Amino acid sequence: MANSKYEYVKDFEVEDNLMPHTWIVIRIDGRGFTKFSQAHRFQKPNDMDALLLMNAAAVTVVEDMADVVFAYGVSDEYSFVLRKTSTLYQRRASKLISVVCSLFASSYVMNWSKFFPNTTLQCAPAFDGRAVCYPSESILRDYLSWRQVDCHINNQYNTCFWNLVGSGKSTAEAQNILKGTTADVKNNILFDTFNINYNDLPQIFRKGSSIYRKKVERVVKVEDVSGREIKRLKSCVVVEHEDIIRESFWTNNPHILGGK
Amino acid sequence: MANSKYEYVKDFEVEDNLMPHTWIVIRIDGRGFTKFSQAHRFQKPNDMDALLLMNAAAVTVVEDMADVVFAYGVSDEYSFVLRKTSTLYQRRASKLISVVCSLFASSYVMNWSKFFPNTTLQCAPAFDGRAVCYPSESILRDYLSWRQVDCHINNQYNTCFWNLVGSGKSTAEAQNILKGTTADVKNNILFDTFNINYNDLPQIFRKGSSIYRKKVERVVKVEDVSGREIKRLKSCVVVEHEDIIRESFWTNNPHILGGK
Amino acid sequence: MANSKYEYVKDFEVEDNLMPHTWIVIRIDGRGFTKFSQAHRFQKPNDMDALLLMNAAAVTVVEDMADVVFAYGVSDEYSFVLRKTSTLYQRRASKLISVVCSLFASSYVMNWSKFFPNTTLQCAPAFDGRAVCYPSESILRDYLSWRQVDCHINNQYNTCFWNLVGSGKSTAEAQNILKGTTADVKNNILFDTFNINYNDLPQIFRKGSSIYRKKVERVVKVEDVSGREIKRLKSCVVVEHEDIIRESFWTNNPHILGGK
Amino acid sequence: MANSKYEYVKDFEVEDNLMPHTWIVIRIDGRGFTKFSQAHRFQKPNDMDALLLMNAAAVTVVEDMADVVFAYGVSDEYSFVLRKTSTLYQRRASKLISVVCSLFASSYVMNWSKFFPNTTLQCAPAFDGRAVCYPSESILRDYLSWRQVDCHINNQYNTCFWNLVGSGKSTAEAQNILKGTTADVKNNILFDTFNINYNDLPQIFRKGSSIYRKKVERVVKVEDVSGREIKRLKSCVVVEHEDIIRESFWTNNPHILGGK
Repeated sequence: MANSKYEYVKDFEVEDNLMPHTWIVIRIDGRGFTKFSQAHRFQKPNDMDALLLMNAAAVTVVEDMADVVFAYGVSDEYSFVLRKTSTLYQRRASKLISVVCSLFASSYVMNWSKFFPNTTLQCAPAFDGRAVCYPSESILRDYLSWRQVDCHINNQYNTCFWNLVGSGKSTAEAQNILKGTTADVKNNILFDTFNINYNDLPQIFRKGSSIYRKKVERVVKVEDVSGREIKRLKSCVVVEHEDIIRESFWTNNPHILGGK
Repeated sequence: MANSKYEYVKDFEVEDNLMPHTWIVIRIDGRGFTKFSQAHRFQKPNDMDALLLMNAAAVTVVEDMADVVFAYGVSDEYSFVLRKTSTLYQRRASKLISVVCSLFASSYVMNWSKFFPNTTLQCAPAFDGRAVCYPSESILRDYLSWRQVDCHINNQYNTCFWNLVGSGKSTAEAQNILKGTTADVKNNILFDTFNINYNDLPQIFRKGSSIYRKKVERVVKVEDVSGREIKRLKSCVVVEHEDIIRESFWTNNPHILGGK
Repeated sequence: MANSKYEYVKDFEVEDNLMPHTWIVIRIDGRGFTKFSQAHRFQKPNDMDALLLMNAAAVTVVEDMADVVFAYGVSDEYSFVLRKTSTLYQRRASKLISVVCSLFASSYVMNWSKFFPNTTLQCAPAFDGRAVCYPSESILRDYLSWRQVDCHINNQYNTCFWNLVGSGKSTAEAQNILKGTTADVKNNILFDTFNINYNDLPQIFRKGSSIYRKKVERVVKVEDVSGREIKRLKSCVVVEHEDIIRESFWTNNPHILGGK
Repeated sequence: MANSKYEYVKDFEVEDNLMPHTWIVIRIDGRGFTKFSQAHRFQKPNDMDALLLMNAAAVTVVEDMADVVFAYGVSDEYSFVLRKTSTLYQRRASKLISVVCSLFASSYVMNWSKFFPNTTLQCAPAFDGRAVCYPSESILRDYLSWRQVDCHINNQYNTCFWNLVGSGKSTAEAQNILKGTTADVKNNILFDTFNINYNDLPQIFRKGSSIYRKKVERVVKVEDVSGREIKRLKSCVVVEHEDIIRESFWTNNPHILGGK
């Protein structure tokens, strides 16, 4: 076969299968989204449409890949958790990362006009991704807590910062005012100066977005012999903004990490 | 800091920097494109619009990433070559793969309607990618030759196959006729039965597409003191369908692999 | 500094840190030990001195490396288990493998004359090693069970084989007789033909060797105020030949995997 | 098969094949050799016997492994270069590292009494190792130059340091005197204070040791028809102390890197 002369180049390909029986997290980040959000005039500190668009793209990924049991998003970042026993793409890191990132990106573009009907998409958005494995459910939960704590810290800071800037401070002045302040001080600035109760801000800003399958009762059209409607449990993908650090979320949803 | 309790989870991230001073190839493939091409009624054996759309998306990648010095595409596959000395994303495999794949995917969606104005994009396309390093220019060239030989072999086979099917053979019959045939026999089938001279088929089908920067002479509007127009060499990205196995292509374009 | 011109070569070094919070197993194997054992006339199917020498070398490793909590050996192979939380050499695979293998090898040579006082060591023995991580105690236990089952299967086969050969069969004949036989058939061959009750063979042959730390009561010379001798629990390294597949071994020795 | 229940644990083994067509360097270092050299009273700054013992162990490795085309040693460190095309152990890093380190260690112990007939070896020496790949001969040469420059810098410093200490300075005083000094100043200290011409020191201290195969003319006992002795080129392993930074060494020995 003519091709065989060159086929030795395949020997340079390397295996990158992730460790079996560990939780795989694919975390993706918008590339250059500071610039991207300015170019498309995203609102500060949070643009609701931009977040909903991120969520729509993430839902595409979760619905497409059955092994993704949970996704958590904040700002221009999303984490996708694959079940511990997943053998998708033989757990090859590059395959998993590239499919998640490209599927997310194309869904992001396809959904753009739904959330930004009056804004032309000016350039092709890109997302960088990485794969990380966690050997136990407990460490995986710590990973997710890490991201939600980060969401809270960043949101609180940014809410203060942009309100200060909106009130006429320069960015340097705003930075200076917030430097080294505790959570309490930031909350007081928001309340005293801007009459904002931090806890009244939308959950999506404060808690980020969690995507997972939920068993919901659905009335099925087909009737049983007695003519009554049948209710069936049907799994569907939901987007919530709950506290995922607390034990209660996971005990209320044991199927997410424990289910087969 | 409240977050520090969870930050240990970062220790599970692994480095995946690619070997310095080697040529990096990022090769991407359409995920499930057999089904995708049927859903969107791509013509067989080659759909010119689908190929041009692939090229448009690849041009976005080449123009966006200065370190990509060459790209070669065939069917639903594209290879992007990064210069040997590139330090983009510290040569981290996952970053490079994910950015290339997602940028390609979002550009693919953004350009869809230009090439398929009458066909609705039915689902979010995804591309899987991998990174491979080649330690010398000679082996890199063998890699590219491998892909172009593959292009030729597949195209010749598919052209025969789909003409046979078009002429009324079943797919099983067509497979049977072609089983084990040499290149000559396939060419004869095309010529004798279908009056097709293989070498008259469009270059893009037979040779694939090569994308690279070319210095082109451009007339610059500003005039010199004598009033004459100034011609300047300007680098621009071109799409060609040349034979990249032959030495001559590379001696004619020494700047592609050799240039800084 | 004169050296800096060349120091860029360090950039080619790659990280190979093993995943945190997983059990690390370093398994080593004698290189070319079929030939090595013939050259030194090791007895077949088991040479007690050769096994005791392996154990002595393994004890050196366990005593030297506090993070090795368990070691299991059979034939010319040894597995060393590092505690899940070990950060020895930052968990770098190459460091761990090379130190274990070279320490084992030099101890093997140093102890040679104790076990083979009348046999000159004819060549430098070498051991190849690998590192494998296991994410849970349960999978680690399965790994150890895998090795002990292997010990049993090989020992039973080899005991039959060498007794057949010793009774005058050719190696080909012996292989033929044993081909595809069940454990029962092999035990019957041993009992009926050679009057050997498999279960009476030394534990070390049937169960391999386990090395770990044990708290033992030691009478300390120093007396208390009343003049009585004091008994203290002292940790020391022991070599046993127990069944490590059974739950009971691990419940009786909870400190091995659970300790620290 | 009884074993199959546990055999899934093999899935946790990871491939670590090194990139084809690159030069592999296995560098090993004595583990804890500061302490080891004190325990065995090695002379400072250089112990000739200890260096010759290192060389003897390295010769064992070179003679044993045909693919090791060059080795360079200094102090308690040795680098072994495998030919670019080597497929030894399928280029698996852990295999290569562990065999080199353990073979070196066992040879070191076996040869100990030749070089230290009056000193008992007090503990099992260990060596840690790593594998690094270099994609071109030129970068490989830079690697070797890096090690030889390091040899020179360390030797010059240590020679000054230990002569100062020998002359009654405390180690702190000696460090202070040498802090930030240039090569010239160090040479002057040696010459003016201790009457030592640095360039008169043994080559092995200043240049390290290079081990490689050399074609040497050997008179073969068997005579030809005319009764004359036949001279044949025979390859044998030599230990030299040459300047391997200079081009001339490599042009004089083109077979080392270019051969086969």
